[in-house]
Amino acid sequence: MRGRVLSFTLFGESHGKGVGVVITGIPPGIKVSHEELVKELERRKGIPGLSTARSEPDNPIILSGIFRGYTTGTPIAVLFENKDVDSSYYEDIKDKPRPGHADYPARIKYFGYNDYRGGGHFSGRLTVGIVTAGYFAKKILEKYGIRIRAYIKRIGRVEAKQLTLEEILSSENPFCPDEEAFEKMVEEIELARREGDSVGGIVEVVAVNVPPGLGGPYEEDIEADLASAFFRIPAVKGVEFGLGFKVAEKRGSEVNDPYVIRDGKVVTKTNNHGGVLGGITTGMPIIARIAFKPTPSIYLPQRTVDLREMKEVEIKLRGRFDPSIVPRALPVVEGVMAFVLADHLLFRRVWELKSS
Amino acid sequence: MRGRVLSFTLFGESHGKGVGVVITGIPPGIKVSHEELVKELERRKGIPGLSTARSEPDNPIILSGIFRGYTTGTPIAVLFENKDVDSSYYEDIKDKPRPGHADYPARIKYFGYNDYRGGGHFSGRLTVGIVTAGYFAKKILEKYGIRIRAYIKRIGRVEAKQLTLEEILSSENPFCPDEEAFEKMVEEIELARREGDSVGGIVEVVAVNVPPGLGGPYEEDIEADLASAFFRIPAVKGVEFGLGFKVAEKRGSEVNDPYVIRDGKVVTKTNNHGGVLGGITTGMPIIARIAFKPTPSIYLPQRTVDLREMKEVEIKLRGRFDPSIVPRALPVVEGVMAFVLADHLLFRRVWELKSS
Amino acid sequence: MRGRVLSFTLFGESHGKGVGVVITGIPPGIKVSHEELVKELERRKGIPGLSTARSEPDNPIILSGIFRGYTTGTPIAVLFENKDVDSSYYEDIKDKPRPGHADYPARIKYFGYNDYRGGGHFSGRLTVGIVTAGYFAKKILEKYGIRIRAYIKRIGRVEAKQLTLEEILSSENPFCPDEEAFEKMVEEIELARREGDSVGGIVEVVAVNVPPGLGGPYEEDIEADLASAFFRIPAVKGVEFGLGFKVAEKRGSEVNDPYVIRDGKVVTKTNNHGGVLGGITTGMPIIARIAFKPTPSIYLPQRTVDLREMKEVEIKLRGRFDPSIVPRALPVVEGVMAFVLADHLLFRRVWELKSS
Amino acid sequence: MRGRVLSFTLFGESHGKGVGVVITGIPPGIKVSHEELVKELERRKGIPGLSTARSEPDNPIILSGIFRGYTTGTPIAVLFENKDVDSSYYEDIKDKPRPGHADYPARIKYFGYNDYRGGGHFSGRLTVGIVTAGYFAKKILEKYGIRIRAYIKRIGRVEAKQLTLEEILSSENPFCPDEEAFEKMVEEIELARREGDSVGGIVEVVAVNVPPGLGGPYEEDIEADLASAFFRIPAVKGVEFGLGFKVAEKRGSEVNDPYVIRDGKVVTKTNNHGGVLGGITTGMPIIARIAFKPTPSIYLPQRTVDLREMKEVEIKLRGRFDPSIVPRALPVVEGVMAFVLADHLLFRRVWELKSS
Repeated sequence: MRGRVLSFTLFGESHGKGVGVVITGIPPGIKVSHEELVKELERRKGIPGLSTARSEPDNPIILSGIFRGYTTGTPIAVLFENKDVDSSYYEDIKDKPRPGHADYPARIKYFGYNDYRGGGHFSGRLTVGIVTAGYFAKKILEKYGIRIRAYIKRIGRVEAKQLTLEEILSSENPFCPDEEAFEKMVEEIELARREGDSVGGIVEVVAVNVPPGLGGPYEEDIEADLASAFFRIPAVKGVEFGLGFKVAEKRGSEVNDPYVIRDGKVVTKTNNHGGVLGGITTGMPIIARIAFKPTPSIYLPQRTVDLREMKEVEIKLRGRFDPSIVPRALPVVEGVMAFVLADHLLFRRVWELKSS
Repeated sequence: MRGRVLSFTLFGESHGKGVGVVITGIPPGIKVSHEELVKELERRKGIPGLSTARSEPDNPIILSGIFRGYTTGTPIAVLFENKDVDSSYYEDIKDKPRPGHADYPARIKYFGYNDYRGGGHFSGRLTVGIVTAGYFAKKILEKYGIRIRAYIKRIGRVEAKQLTLEEILSSENPFCPDEEAFEKMVEEIELARREGDSVGGIVEVVAVNVPPGLGGPYEEDIEADLASAFFRIPAVKGVEFGLGFKVAEKRGSEVNDPYVIRDGKVVTKTNNHGGVLGGITTGMPIIARIAFKPTPSIYLPQRTVDLREMKEVEIKLRGRFDPSIVPRALPVVEGVMAFVLADHLLFRRVWELKSS
Repeated sequence: MRGRVLSFTLFGESHGKGVGVVITGIPPGIKVSHEELVKELERRKGIPGLSTARSEPDNPIILSGIFRGYTTGTPIAVLFENKDVDSSYYEDIKDKPRPGHADYPARIKYFGYNDYRGGGHFSGRLTVGIVTAGYFAKKILEKYGIRIRAYIKRIGRVEAKQLTLEEILSSENPFCPDEEAFEKMVEEIELARREGDSVGGIVEVVAVNVPPGLGGPYEEDIEADLASAFFRIPAVKGVEFGLGFKVAEKRGSEVNDPYVIRDGKVVTKTNNHGGVLGGITTGMPIIARIAFKPTPSIYLPQRTVDLREMKEVEIKLRGRFDPSIVPRALPVVEGVMAFVLADHLLFRRVWELKSS
Repeated sequence: MRGRVLSFTLFGESHGKGVGVVITGIPPGIKVSHEELVKELERRKGIPGLSTARSEPDNPIILSGIFRGYTTGTPIAVLFENKDVDSSYYEDIKDKPRPGHADYPARIKYFGYNDYRGGGHFSGRLTVGIVTAGYFAKKILEKYGIRIRAYIKRIGRVEAKQLTLEEILSSENPFCPDEEAFEKMVEEIELARREGDSVGGIVEVVAVNVPPGLGGPYEEDIEADLASAFFRIPAVKGVEFGLGFKVAEKRGSEVNDPYVIRDGKVVTKTNNHGGVLGGITTGMPIIARIAFKPTPSIYLPQRTVDLREMKEVEIKLRGRFDPSIVPRALPVVEGVMAFVLADHLLFRRVWELKSS
């Protein structure tokens, strides 16, 4: 992800030597710890018992950019070594693109030279790099009191009830503040798994204490930068802010948020705009929803094509699949949002001439 | 918008000398015409009679980059001069940010130095530059037989029926192939206008004959680049591809598109993925939906704050407003989509070593 | 030129509607004036009487980004309209590339579609856009007390004597502080002109009061960014900093600048490094020298090739040429240096977390 | 280094876990080998016996982007692990910036948080990443028959005689085709070493078979991109192309290269322009000279400042230093040049619409 100040590049393949990330632009002097990073990465494991995540212990090896517990300001490289995995199975389906996966378009893009084993560079495992980048971005946001919280808004047919910001931010449940809905969500995932299938969902994410004035029109639009970052997360098919698609059904008089004064501060009475107007933050909480499709890997037999023999065939995938990636996506969504916000927050300072 | 090959920068303010665009990266030797460009710009006028667009004749003055009817390969600068406009009214509301507009966050971002008259740099008028950039991008796509068509999917409570690609591409109606729904949409807009209000809507856009292999994972994700471009259009609050948010309710077995062979070509039986998998085009039509909020400018009285006196006040806007910008957004949506596709299409060639 | 904060794009052709520039990233609230800009542009005219610059009055039309005498923070577009020029002559030499000019490589790059009249997009006239961008950058540097001064170090066989910083900065002579040498330089140019020839030269530029800590290693290297900017000026063939090429002949013990304390500040006793070490400013004056080749346009007959008939021919150029562009290059050199320094200066602030 | 197609990011510190590089944009399907890469890296060792390079065996661990001997098209990450080094010595000089090194400006840029041991991120060891990136770029150039060769033009007072392209390209001597001069250069380096000093030099690099039409004016200037890349190599203080600084002394009639026809091809009779006109390649060999300063690390006592106690002190450096880095710079110079040329070569293809 290339920002104005912060950037990161993911590298690695699922069955190669390892995966990792190189992050540039992180300011020097930020206290960080291996433990905190590991803890953040743990969230990628999803719902205990439910998720059948690859058992790989996500152990980050910090190669550079950290010195005596503080960021140095130079590129931060973090490596996650892969444990040897049996890749033989992938030879069987090498020429049979898995429906819903990137196999087919990737084969065309890379002229067939890509490492197809376990999805190669497209493996969900690459998201450890995103969460790592997000960890460092969050440390920057902390200094400004900005907090981000993502939760599961919907799994299949189960949707969480309308929650207040307070409920979202204070919830003990790491997945969904609506305990009742959460139980049903777990059942929904369990059911999909039992049937050898998978299920999609929606993640809602909020960011509070974001100062007004971040972003800008057109090229600087922070809503566009956030949407762009969300869509770079595998399996995302939709993104909306504030009222989102509901604005289409409404009148301007219903959607426009009136300005009011609260405790001497200018705020909007409602937050239908979701914290961004004209591409610029208003100081109100940023609220976004991201739609994730069901894990394309399922146990049910599927129709596809044998690209070598150019004939239609049926495949049955083997391995351990997540019936839903939504729970595991929470730290990834928070991570990219933190990265974009931190980037705009730092960049915002370039115009503050006076204090110089 | 900064692409890998193509970029454009919008400049100008609503009540300044003019607005315009500078486009870079357009290949030399493309036949273009002032007439075609003007025709494309005409589409920005919206539904005749209904739209109350500023009467300004959008006359593009091509300053550079075109020589004897062909693009030269050097930057294309196009200027649209502003006719003198009475700006006095804006002095009254200078300190009273209009709800739903960028007035308030812009004032903070620019420390109060921005030209607030008529929305200044945030004026919808700036989209003439986007349509202009889109015109040149479309000329590139033409050479590859790629076609883009946007139409109104929804206005307020009225939604067009499910349409086939053929219906969408062949329709004579420039706004919506579903004539019946279109009539109701017009009524919906009329109604909003009569009530001094405005109404939102959804634009669906399709691109056909897009070759597979465009885009890539993470940084190269073409779905993310398209979403990013759509969100940079003023008033957009949601973007989705293929099934979009509906994927959240479904099972993997329902969402995964099986591969089949048709006329010796590999295609997917269904197109729930909307033409992009893993950030890469599959060769199937790209389908996206973009949600537009109601025009924030309405005649009904609204609550806001006088920022100088820091007290809540009521404002009643004067001027000529569009009860819905959705009809006028069609060429803008097509324009940014064409720009992103052309950029990826041209960039795709950098890896074709063989033919060199 | 694309910086981290500031960027500008030049557009236009010598015999087209006009030339200009669009500048982005300039902070809002900077007081600017049309008069000052015109005065800066006047410097591009070169030595009165000597230079035979196109009589075109460089009248900048500010299209956007300035409101009531202050920058707004939105893109600044400035247009310079071309007066009608007789282009008929260029038809004769259309297929006969002028030696030393970009005619031949440009014809290949643009597949023959470029506007070849008067050099088209490669015309020296485009530098009005660079000087304009430099003007705004200098206004930023002013706020930090940074001063830039370029002067003619050499013309043909005449070189100015070694000058002190004080002499350079305080000189009344806008072209060269060494009056004696300047007289000889004028003669050298006069001589070249009388002989229908042209002559090259060297510009030395200094920047004082640049804070230490700007730039960085590798990608952030400010020396590389400055060199890159200098080389983008037409006719530049060499760039060096501090001792420059002389370092090749010397020992480390001669070149290393010892640190000393002066008035409680850490400085270097000598300034062989020219203000930059490891790509980062040290706080010492930045000193660079830029070599300009003689104007390729000369009256003497030259050998070239008729590309259509593919045979060698002789051409004799007609028109009004500058026997040396060096005097006219001074504001251009200062302009790009100001732009790069202002960009790094503004960007430097993104890491200053504390004061937030 | 960020190109249009190819980019690389260096990471790591001299005394950290390791150093490395992540390269993006390399096309898939390029046959590469670990052996070839190691061989290229060996050239960084400099003149056998003379250079006292850190004995570290430069063993590249390819983490990603290569699959079964071919590039995959996904990011290539290469790691060089550091052997444990005794860093205790650096604690002594921690607050005493070494003259000529980046110690002092780096301390300011990074607010004192940078890893100062062994120069940290500024260590010459980081150039293994540049040579690695250059290796992959050269594999691309090979496909186009483009060859790059760098040699030592000068060491201290010894300069190689004027050499023909053939002599340069066919020489068996990996450091300098002028055997006689080379012997003297070795003596010059030996002498400097015996005296506890170091010595600078000049590298000349040539690239042949570069097609015409690469690059462009202003932003696309390939001369500027090459200069920019050369200046990002540590210790570079000057860069020139073709006649370089000599153009300042000459007349246009001497400098302009006449076009002639040779074997039915358009070429220039002379090559004073060094292969680039108006920022675009002409098809003639690209010739550049790069000035390297003497290694700042010397054994002679030097004056500096104790930044903690703010008083002037003398330091005597300990360790194993290269009396000249010039011989070791050859593969680095070739590497960055290959990277820039490959980037422009690949990018050039985006405009070739016809063949699509």
